[in-house]
Parts: sequence; C-alpha cells; structure tokens
Amino acid sequence: MRKSNKEQPHSKLRIIPLGGLEQIGLNITAFEYENSIVVVDCGLAFPEDDMLGVDLCIPDVSYLEENIARVKGFVITHGHEDHIGALPYVLQKVNAPLYATKLTMALIDKKLEEHNMQNRIKRKVIAHGQSINLGQFRIEFIKTNHSIVDAAALAIYSPAGIVVHTGDFKVDYTPVYGDAIDLQRFGEIGKKGVLALMCDSTNAEREGFTKSEKTIGRIFDEIFGEHQDNRLIIATFASNVDRVQQIINTSCKYGRKVAVEGRSMVNVIETAADLGYIKIPENTLIDLNDLKNYPDEKTVIITTGSQGESMAALSRMAQNIHKKVTIRPTDTIVFSSTPIPGNEKAVDKVINELESNGAEVIFQDVHVSGHACREEIKLIYSLVKPKYAFPIHGEIRHRHAQARIAKELGYDTEHILMINSGDVLEISDDASKPVIAGRIHTDSVYVDGLGVGDVGSVVLRDRQRLSEDGVVVIALSMERGTNQVLSGPEIISRGFVYVKEADELMDDATEVLERTIEELQGRNVNDWGKIRQALRENLSSYIWQRTKRRPMILPVIMEV
Amino acid sequence: MRKSNKEQPHSKLRIIPLGGLEQIGLNITAFEYENSIVVVDCGLAFPEDDMLGVDLCIPDVSYLEENIARVKGFVITHGHEDHIGALPYVLQKVNAPLYATKLTMALIDKKLEEHNMQNRIKRKVIAHGQSINLGQFRIEFIKTNHSIVDAAALAIYSPAGIVVHTGDFKVDYTPVYGDAIDLQRFGEIGKKGVLALMCDSTNAEREGFTKSEKTIGRIFDEIFGEHQDNRLIIATFASNVDRVQQIINTSCKYGRKVAVEGRSMVNVIETAADLGYIKIPENTLIDLNDLKNYPDEKTVIITTGSQGESMAALSRMAQNIHKKVTIRPTDTIVFSSTPIPGNEKAVDKVINELESNGAEVIFQDVHVSGHACREEIKLIYSLVKPKYAFPIHGEIRHRHAQARIAKELGYDTEHILMINSGDVLEISDDASKPVIAGRIHTDSVYVDGLGVGDVGSVVLRDRQRLSEDGVVVIALSMERGTNQVLSGPEIISRGFVYVKEADELMDDATEVLERTIEELQGRNVNDWGKIRQALRENLSSYIWQRTKRRPMILPVIMEV
Repeated sequence: MRKSNKEQPHSKLRIIPLGGLEQIGLNITAFEYENSIVVVDCGLAFPEDDMLGVDLCIPDVSYLEENIARVKGFVITHGHEDHIGALPYVLQKVNAPLYATKLTMALIDKKLEEHNMQNRIKRKVIAHGQSINLGQFRIEFIKTNHSIVDAAALAIYSPAGIVVHTGDFKVDYTPVYGDAIDLQRFGEIGKKGVLALMCDSTNAEREGFTKSEKTIGRIFDEIFGEHQDNRLIIATFASNVDRVQQIINTSCKYGRKVAVEGRSMVNVIETAADLGYIKIPENTLIDLNDLKNYPDEKTVIITTGSQGESMAALSRMAQNIHKKVTIRPTDTIVFSSTPIPGNEKAVDKVINELESNGAEVIFQDVHVSGHACREEIKLIYSLVKPKYAFPIHGEIRHRHAQARIAKELGYDTEHILMINSGDVLEISDDASKPVIAGRIHTDSVYVDGLGVGDVGSVVLRDRQRLSEDGVVVIALSMERGTNQVLSGPEIISRGFVYVKEADELMDDATEVLERTIEELQGRNVNDWGKIRQALRENLSSYIWQRTKRRPMILPVIMEV
Repeated sequence: MRKSNKEQPHSKLRIIPLGGLEQIGLNITAFEYENSIVVVDCGLAFPEDDMLGVDLCIPDVSYLEENIARVKGFVITHGHEDHIGALPYVLQKVNAPLYATKLTMALIDKKLEEHNMQNRIKRKVIAHGQSINLGQFRIEFIKTNHSIVDAAALAIYSPAGIVVHTGDFKVDYTPVYGDAIDLQRFGEIGKKGVLALMCDSTNAEREGFTKSEKTIGRIFDEIFGEHQDNRLIIATFASNVDRVQQIINTSCKYGRKVAVEGRSMVNVIETAADLGYIKIPENTLIDLNDLKNYPDEKTVIITTGSQGESMAALSRMAQNIHKKVTIRPTDTIVFSSTPIPGNEKAVDKVINELESNGAEVIFQDVHVSGHACREEIKLIYSLVKPKYAFPIHGEIRHRHAQARIAKELGYDTEHILMINSGDVLEISDDASKPVIAGRIHTDSVYVDGLGVGDVGSVVLRDRQRLSEDGVVVIALSMERGTNQVLSGPEIISRGFVYVKEADELMDDATEVLERTIEELQGRNVNDWGKIRQALRENLSSYIWQRTKRRPMILPVIMEV
C-alpha cells in the first residue's frame, strides 16, 4: 500500500515539484503554506523511446487530489504543451481556478474545448504586472520573453518570503511583439529581498546571450532575397507566433502569398490573430488549394513538421504523400527550428527525403532559442539576488550547469539546492536553510489511447519483449480429469520469424512440445500451471538454442 | 519471382553500389569490367529505430553470389565496422581474397576468428603506395588520414580509365601516427587524367577544414592540467587508436596510471600495440582491479560507451551497476567524441546520470571528426580533377552538399552523378557520359540472433504493432463436425493493459466474443476462417471503441 499523501497544514512554506525535474516536460510545482496550495504550471511530456505505445505522460497529482480542499488554483506561466498540456487530465481530478495571461489562456481554452470541459473550469486572465491573492499567497505576473508571446515569470509572495519563478524565459531587448522582459521589476523585487529563485536552466550550458527573435527576421530577408526564383516552404514551431509574424512580414515585402499548412499551425495563427498578437495584412493569406493560381516563386508555405514528426505536413510532403503539395527541384525548404533532443534522426530523414526530391534545404542558423543562456541567467541572479537557488527546467545536466553558474556568482553549496520531483522542500519563516522534509509519490502517469494510468512498467516490459522478438502462442486442448491431449499442441507466431523460413523450425518446435507433454504425463504431472511452465521453458530454450531469440511464449491450455 | 542478377560480361566499366547510399553503413561497391569484379569495402549498418529487434543489417550480395566466378577479391579501405563489419557474413556466400592495409587486416582477422573463418579466407596485406592486379583491374592503395590509422584511398585502374575512391578520409597535415595523406600522389594521378572521383561526403555540409587529431592532445593537456585533483574517466571510440595514444601520452606526462575498460577498447589497444601502432610506456597500464591501489587523482580510465550504448562500460558506471568502478563527485568524465546521429538521447541520458552522481562532465570540443570538410573536399577535387563526380559516403543530404561543392568548382550537372544503391552505372571506354544501364536488387538483409534474412517487413510490421498495443489471444475449442464450442472463449493479453485495470474490460470482451459465436451459429457459419475473422474484427472494434488501442488479436481455434 502506498502511503497516503494527505497532510496536515504546515506553518512553513513548502515547495513540492510534482514532476519535471527528471523527465522533461512534466512541469508542475505545488507551493504550500498552511491551508493554501497554489500550483504553478501543469505540463505533459512526450514518451521516451522505451515507453512503447504510450501517447503522452502526465504528472501524478494524487497529492493534490488528497489535499484538494486546500488547492486555491493553477497559475500558468506560458502556453507551451510542457506547461499546459496536462491540464485537461489534471483538472478532471483537481478542479480549481486557472490564472494565466491572455494568449496562454486562449490556448488553454482550445484544449478544454477539445475535452468538452470549457464550462466546468473557472478561468481568469491576468495581465503582466497584475497580482492575484490565492489564500496565503499573492502571485504577481512579470513580463518575460520566450519563444511564445505572453510568457510570464511569477513572484510568489508567502509569509516565509518571496520566491521568484522565471518559467521558461529569455532576455529579448527587441522582441517582435510587445515589450522586453521587465528587468526593472526583477530588480525592484530583488531589492525587497528574495527568499529563493527558481530559474530556467535549459540553456545553462551555453555561453553568452540568446539572440533576439528579431535577428531571424533579417535572416528571412536574406533567404527571400537570395531565392527569388524558388517557392519557399518554411517549417517552424506552430506556437512561435513571432516567427510566423516575421515570415508573413518578409513575404509581404517580397510580394509573396502565404499558405498555412498543418492543423496546429492553423489553430495557433487563428488564435493569435483573433487576440491581435499577429497582424496579417489583407490579401496575404491564401488557401492551400489556391497555390496553383500563383507562380511558385510568388508563394510561401508555412508548415508544421519542423521536428520531423512522421504525420506532420512537411513529412508528408517529403514522402510525396501530401495531397496538395508536391516537392519540386525548384523548391527551397527552410527549417526555422533546431531539432529537440531525440528528434535529430527524424529531422534528418525528412531532410534526406527533401534533398532526394532535388529541393534545396536550409536548416542552419534560421532559429534562435527561447531560453536564457549563461549571461542571461547571471543577469537574473544579479537582479533578484535570491538567498537560495533552486535550478529548475531542463535536464539534470542543465540544472547542474546552472548550479555551477550560481557557484561562480558566489553562492555556496548550502544555498544552492538541487531538488528532485517529489521532494518536499520546507522553508521556515526565519528563512533558515531549507530542508527536504519528506517525499511524495510522483511517478508520471502514462496516457495510451483513452487509458490514463492503465499502462505501467509490466505492460511496457511486455511490449519491449514483444517488439524485440515477437510472440509465440502454444495452444492445446486437454480432457478434463484425464489430462489427455485432445488437440494440439499448435504453434502460432507473430513478429518472430518470417513464416516461410520457419516451417522446419516450427515442426521441430512442435516435436519439442510433444516430447514435453509425454514426459510430463510419464511423471503424472497434472498441475496445469506446471504443464504450462514446462511447455514455456522447453520451447523457450529450444528457440534460443536454434535462433538466439527470446520471443514471448504464451501457452494456452483449453480444458474440454 | 525476382529476376536473376546473373549477367553476361560487359566490355564497359560498370560501377554498382550494392548498399550504403541510402542507409549509412552498408558501404560496398562492385567495380566490374568484362570477366572481373572487384568489391570495395563490405560494411554493416546498425538498425534504424523501426527495425525492431534487428541486431544489424548487412548488404544483399546476391549479385555477387550469382556472378561469383568473376569476383576477384574484396579491397578494404579501412577497419571501421561500416566498411568491414559484414565480411564474416558475406564471405560465407562469396569466398574471395581480401586485400587491406596492416591494421585493417588485423581487425578483419579478429572478426574472422570470432566466426571461425580465419582459415578459409585468403588474405593479403597491402602497403600504402602498393598496387595489386585483380583481373582487368589494378588497384593502388593511397595513404589517407581518418579517425582510424592505416586508412587508404584507392586508385582503381580500368580499361575505361582511372576511378579514385577516397574511402572515409580527412586531410591531417600533422597526424599522431604515421604520415599525412599522400596529396602528391593524388596530384600525380590527377595529372594522368582521372575518369571519376568517388569522394567522402560525410562533412560536406561543414565549412572549412577538419582539425588535426593532434589538436586534441593539447586539449587533453589543458584538461589534465585543470583537473589535477580529480580522477579522469575518458570515453572515446575504441577504434580511434591515435586518440588513445594521446590519452596515454598525457597520462604519462602527468604521472597517472591508465586502466582500460570495455571489451572492444581492450581488443583494439592490444591489436594496435602488437602491430606497433600505439606505444605504451612500461608501468603505465594497470588492471582495473588495481585502481584502488592508487590515489584517484593519479589514475585515468579509458572506456567505451561514448555513444551512450546501454551495455557499455560507461553506461554501467553512470547507472551505478558497474562492478569495479563507482562514480564519485570528485570524478571528471570526458566525452572525447560527438554523438553519432541518433545517439543524442542515449548520450544525454548517460551525462544526466553522471551529473546526478555529482561528477563533472566535459563533453564539448574534445573531439575532431575523421571526415573531410568542404575545403578538403575542394582540395581533393582540385588535385584529382576528375571528369565525373560520384559523391559517396554520408547521408543523401551530405552527398547533395558535395554535389553543390562540385558545382561551385565548375562541374555541370552532366558531370555530377547522384547514384543510388543498386544502380548499374556504365561507362564506355571513350569516357562518354556514364549511364545508368540497369538496377539490381539491394535491400539490406537483417541479422537477428542467428537468423540472417529471416526477418523482413512482415515480421517488423508485426513487431511494431505488438510494441504499440500488445497482443490479445482468443482461445476456443470446437467440436469437429458440429462446431459446438466445448471450451472458451478465453482471452489472454500481454502488453495491452495493466491486468488489474482490465478485469471488467476482459469480461465485457468475452461477452462480445460469445455473442459473435452465437450469431455465427445462428447463421450456420461453419468456416473456421470466417469464424476467426469475425472474432478478430468484433473484438478489435470493441477494444478500439473502449480504449482507442489496436492490439494484435490472435484467434486460436482448437479442433477437438
């Protein structure tokens, strides 16, 4: 039995990352003080390679369920999947109000609509600079920059002190839309005295500063200038509204029409346009079906698929199975993106396919990151001057890299805490050294089809085994009472060996089973469990010896 | 039926890549003139992600088998797996003499020994600068540089002209062992007039020159200097003898003992030391078991696992399951390597695990490539000045990048040929434009356990299906003649859903099957094929509707 997570209220600040510190994506952190719990972000993760058949991973929120009466709300830093994606699942179990900036909330709304939940959840849009009171906490939204507009850092005011949570951020002095990060406010709050900084580590291994999003506009200008005789197909992240804006701006400058392809791309552009976050001049957008009415060199296609996703529009174009767009040798395809770790091979495959079609592919230096590099991290530390540092966001190596930056800035190991998901970090009102006061259960929950949590390690281990060497079923009918074999043993296999090659192998295997049965009957073994086990073991070792493979063997004995 | 590849001799030069132009690794090319066939290289490829359970891929050499009487020998450019790995499999079918430089041959010998074939194959070691006559061909070995010593380019003299095949190469003016690439000879042969250049494309997307291997020695020096209080664990490619030499040199300079871990690393170092390609001062190497007798900061461990291979020594250390080496916070681990495309996530995982143990990981800029960058490719073109260019080695995108370099150098598309595996490229003695005169079958052959070629697309498709949603077996006994159900239907599943969650689902599914049987009996359907099909389809659609999953469904009907 798992221990219940139900807790008595504590007169201390408790910070509990419910996910995201080991597995990228599941960003969700509970802040707790006495009878108040505030949750920051609620992201999903895409499955690792060994999570076979899993569609996505969501955080385990049993702690929140068990303490639901104290949950005052979810505060969301920005609209990326790894910060909002698990909301439809989590809100079904923990229905609490949502707080987010305008675009973030619009993207959440789309999600809730898809799950038919939009009328069941209380939601409030918060502007940058605005604060909300949630129980013992006050939460202030601070303007930041990121690869999606309307990102916010949070100043979390608690009786134990102020915690600054950056969310994902970068410093962009010249953003495409809206204001630069509110560095003054970071400084002002820092002056008040900040208990702890939870800062984005994603780029903590990278030297210097992340370039401004605007630099990409200049690169588009060059690319458009140099490819005036080519159709341009530009792949980027659907959620990067500023990037799309810059493609549209450059297209207008060069007198090109723009078609948008890919469901998520169309969705985000619609949402952003509705809210005024993107400006599309009239007569710029055309339907994909109308591309044929314009000369190739007067068109641009903005598309999804920059990560090599096999079902995305660009992959379908590359494989020549897209219904409306055929890649031509005169096309220039631009990847305005870098591969997210793990997607390199998939992106590679798409580039190879595009090049095979004779098209030119541009994939270097047409992207800037949305995350702060080393100098920006130092800047935020220097403005906020927290007493304690809890590096968050990014892989373990990135969080350790931030810890090293903090050390360079003079923090000693007493003041840098490397916490793990499930750690209950407790800070007294006197701001003495935070302690890990406990641990809660936070394994991520797998979503597979409609099933949430019904796929676990046993199922995954079986899938792994099946994926490597397939399955062999042994079927047998036996007479009740006498245990005489009435029919079989029959062998059926899938994913094990090409059938035509296997005839002789299967004949020999059947013989092995027949000998096993004879031998068991000779010893008067009547226990079906033992019979099954003997059949499995003997067949398994025979197959191993003949093929050096270990298919899953399933003996089925029918009692007649 | 596949068409036979058996061919009548042609009085033309025919170049037939039997693999390697789409799938990296399977490097093997047949050169043919009248009654002579010479094969260059014979590599294996590691499986792509969708080749579930496949251990490795080897080329389809049925063309060589069918023309075996004309095969004069295999000429090998260097000792990497993607150039020699398939030899033990291919030589079993096509036994012909082998020609290679000293270290290359020693590595091949090890392989043949493992397969108990060393006495069945004729082998001859060739020195750089030496030529061999093979039927209508003369083959000259030319000194090059690469990430393994003893690499060679080949000048292939045929009645139709000279073809220069670079193998994998770089230009290293200051190699660690032996001479620099024999640029003079490339120039000399170029002056004679070269028909075609087959040049390595791997780094054709990279600007400039690849750095000398020696630059890494200076970086080791810095790392050793800055980490005099730490144990150093250095992971690199087992076959990079020069790298190992430099680690040993630096270790000696700093008075450290060196332990070597990982079977392939130990093998290569032994082989290289035997042949004099690596010099290890006395009292430098120690056994891994003796590490404990020295202070940490006076030791270095050279290990395999730089690609995050899950069973390699470094991965086991990172996961704390290595029997002899435990990672300590005072350790510094150096990746003297870059991840091969597709291995990024695996390397990432190991780095995260090492950092979790508190160790410092250095992974940037401690590696140089073994392949020529753009300026080196231009250099080779300018020395050889071939009439025709056939870019080889590397992914399709890389070969296209080389084609663009050739264009920059003034070659028109008539003189740059992008060939595919299986293309039969024919060149007349008058050196008029080469034509693709035919195609042969060259799908790669999968090796899984002891099976060679018994896993194909059907098996892989089944494994894919099994890996995603598992398997559901329906078992049923029916009476011969009457088709009365004597027992069942029973349902067994694996990898589908966690059993405790599935009880109700399985009960309902059994009902679906029972209703299906009743309905079939009501309609007097007695054909077992039809019964099986109905059971499969009804259960499948029920499961899809309930779970949105598609497990493989295997109905087994036992006749009693």
